[in-house]
Amino acid sequence: MSDAPGADDEAADRTPAETAQLALLLEVAGTPKPGNVDRRRDLGDLRFEHFLAGAVGAGEGLRMAAAGAPVGRAFERAVDGMARQRGGNTQFGCLLLLVPLVAARAAGDLSPAGVAAVVADTTVEDAADFYRAFEHVDVAVPDPGDEEIAALDVRRGADAIPAVREREVTLADVMELSAERDGNAREWAGGFERTFGAAEAMLADEGPAPDRVARAFLELLAEEPDSLVETRHGARTAEHVRERAAAVAGDLEAAETLAEDLAAEGINPGTTADVTAAATYVALERGLPV
Amino acid sequence: MSDAPGADDEAADRTPAETAQLALLLEVAGTPKPGNVDRRRDLGDLRFEHFLAGAVGAGEGLRMAAAGAPVGRAFERAVDGMARQRGGNTQFGCLLLLVPLVAARAAGDLSPAGVAAVVADTTVEDAADFYRAFEHVDVAVPDPGDEEIAALDVRRGADAIPAVREREVTLADVMELSAERDGNAREWAGGFERTFGAAEAMLADEGPAPDRVARAFLELLAEEPDSLVETRHGARTAEHVRERAAAVAGDLEAAETLAEDLAAEGINPGTTADVTAAATYVALERGLPV
Repeated sequence: MSDAPGADDEAADRTPAETAQLALLLEVAGTPKPGNVDRRRDLGDLRFEHFLAGAVGAGEGLRMAAAGAPVGRAFERAVDGMARQRGGNTQFGCLLLLVPLVAARAAGDLSPAGVAAVVADTTVEDAADFYRAFEHVDVAVPDPGDEEIAALDVRRGADAIPAVREREVTLADVMELSAERDGNAREWAGGFERTFGAAEAMLADEGPAPDRVARAFLELLAEEPDSLVETRHGARTAEHVRERAAAVAGDLEAAETLAEDLAAEGINPGTTADVTAAATYVALERGLPV
Repeated sequence: MSDAPGADDEAADRTPAETAQLALLLEVAGTPKPGNVDRRRDLGDLRFEHFLAGAVGAGEGLRMAAAGAPVGRAFERAVDGMARQRGGNTQFGCLLLLVPLVAARAAGDLSPAGVAAVVADTTVEDAADFYRAFEHVDVAVPDPGDEEIAALDVRRGADAIPAVREREVTLADVMELSAERDGNAREWAGGFERTFGAAEAMLADEGPAPDRVARAFLELLAEEPDSLVETRHGARTAEHVRERAAAVAGDLEAAETLAEDLAAEGINPGTTADVTAAATYVALERGLPV
């Protein structure tokens, strides 16, 4: 009987789509992740098992991304599969970050430049598929504010596609337009800077992967106001949450109290969880052991 | 924006392989499952995340089973993928039960008769692949006892294949030979009786899927001595564990104490967890909502 294989180079033992699925699962397993569902906490009717089902359902879209399908189509398929559970939106934002990262990995360059190239190559059809993805699940997004771009409001779902086509807006353009108000769009527009930074921090960290996930989440939350919190509760609350995360200083025990508090307050730093999942993917591809 | 789709008939919304992956994940999420890793408990170096990675890695083999590949080959591939994590054997027994169930489902008859037909159709090559699967991971199995069948001891791994070929032993025969000592082999030999029974109990139960998983585990453990416990600790200990599970009477709070105790005693009723995963698969296919 041989030793369990793969312990030396497990990144090479998984396909990019498998690695992305594992990142989704490790993200929700990491605890505490204050304000989010994790291994120890459900949030009312949004429960741990919905994230498990979401990760399973996303598989086909992730495999499409790895096989070179257009980013928009792969994303739309991943969201379609993810939504096949009763919890509602579990991993829309995670997948928005994971799909271009998987595409970059499949193209042989999982780096800020590699994913920026994937973003730059997106088309009007990718944008149309992105809007279609909003038909599968309710996603909390900021008000576009500007009347000029109200026609492109993602909350219009597929109804916005004629405007997307008419204005010849690529998916990269859509993200550029939202970058100011949305943390995930900011990653798209900025070479996934926080994602790659947090991945390196996870690799430099020690201990079981889910603990590294939790610490990465806390650092990201301490670093920048969460844009989902900002959308739902305003900039002041988002900044206050950031300060409270900074006070925890990456200590998982101290973070337990913050987790209890944010759950009680109904505050969900979901964008930070999305970036954490993306960082976990990059870290796994770069050798984070599981 | 439409409601999340799939809430009415989610079984039809997942492929058989996805449903099997979800069953693996729900099995490990169900808590408490005394003596096993679950959402709340790791067991030393065998941790929750190893089961997440095992479920992800098993995907390709499960898809092969759903696509009509020989059961032995699909199982060997599923175990190969499952083993690509550092925890060691996480879901060998679960997969041994899930693969023929997925094959029966793909053939259009997920019933005791349907899976019995899959078992009856297994060949000597399926048996050879089954032995190959033992090369990927260390599995605790009972001593064959009988010198006649020592040549077929699964612990010999691929070295036993010449004897398998010479005696023209099918995978169904291998299971028949082990049925007395191994609970999973007994499922194979007996139309998956406990699996289907527990699945119906889960469907008749109420509440979130992971709670139903935990209660199904407790009922199965109360019903019959766990054969992994018997292999490792003897028949008396296995019977004593059964009695302690019976005393819990399906109460999840009372089971928390049993979970603490079995973890402290190093007793792992792993076969019962395998049957629970298989029952979860059947229950999902029959409409268990997630």
